[in-house]
Amino acid sequence: MKNILLISGHPNLENSVGNKAVIEEFKRLCPQAEIRLLDELYGDYRIDVSAEQSALTKADIIIWQFPFYWYYMPALLKKWLDDVFTHGFAHGSKGKALEGRHLVLSFTTGASADEYQHGHAMNFEVEEFLNPFRQTAALCGLILEKPVYSNSMMYVPGVSSDEDKQAVKDRALNHAKRLFDLVKTI
Amino acid sequence: MKNILLISGHPNLENSVGNKAVIEEFKRLCPQAEIRLLDELYGDYRIDVSAEQSALTKADIIIWQFPFYWYYMPALLKKWLDDVFTHGFAHGSKGKALEGRHLVLSFTTGASADEYQHGHAMNFEVEEFLNPFRQTAALCGLILEKPVYSNSMMYVPGVSSDEDKQAVKDRALNHAKRLFDLVKTI
Repeated sequence: MKNILLISGHPNLENSVGNKAVIEEFKRLCPQAEIRLLDELYGDYRIDVSAEQSALTKADIIIWQFPFYWYYMPALLKKWLDDVFTHGFAHGSKGKALEGRHLVLSFTTGASADEYQHGHAMNFEVEEFLNPFRQTAALCGLILEKPVYSNSMMYVPGVSSDEDKQAVKDRALNHAKRLFDLVKTI
Repeated sequence: MKNILLISGHPNLENSVGNKAVIEEFKRLCPQAEIRLLDELYGDYRIDVSAEQSALTKADIIIWQFPFYWYYMPALLKKWLDDVFTHGFAHGSKGKALEGRHLVLSFTTGASADEYQHGHAMNFEVEEFLNPFRQTAALCGLILEKPVYSNSMMYVPGVSSDEDKQAVKDRALNHAKRLFDLVKTI
């Protein structure tokens, strides 16, 4: 299997139900993947650019694992992107380090699939929010795979029931399996 | 005129040419606007949520001023959004604090207008990247105005010429004027 790098962009993974369970299950299915938890590494938002670029250059498949925050990635993962994907590394006439590698968006949304429709609460389908990701991949020569995402992944401590929590966990296991199945085909 | 709040999301405004000139000129045209420079206030990415929410609740018109980074806002402004637009304040059944206020996206792109076309380097038109912003506004009941943006706003120290720098500054003055003209009509 190819070299796999999973970048976790959740800003507080210990408090997460969905993203945490996805990552744990993916780790079990794919123990050889390198997993980098940005909230543990960079709680202060000061990214070690050379360490991150070095991890990227070893990977054939890069997975961005994150909760959808405002129809995009969380600020922590955006800081990583802004800092690490430099001109001369990720883009520009001499920035070819990522070219031909695969990028997988693996994310969770709090709202339901039903809400992500025209005329419903989110007004758009999930994939209609992804143009910034599409062009980020394109500018860097990354091959963007079909996204793997799960809806209804909201768990609110003190509000959601135990059954809700279990349902989020079940969807997370299914998500991790779909992610692993995709990665195996690349 | 209505109360105007401009939030600057550039992570290093002192090193900026375009965003800095836009803000200076806008300040001259509209001295009554409240201007909050996130890089000065929150260089450590620790946002004072109640101070920001308090500034928002005084504003009729909220301007997000930023450079387009990866076809979205910079991480610093995203951190502000992730932290400040909380459930119960900006959205949710009891989160109506922003409802009916106006949101203006005011941004600069490094690439030229010519590159932001299908079949050209950026593959999409600028406005095709804005769905996350459209839905962020919609979820909060914010009235999203037509965006004000300028292309070809890249200045690279040591690479760009003095004429390039002056051209960026000229476009910035024009941008600030368009922004002010829009604000006056709201």
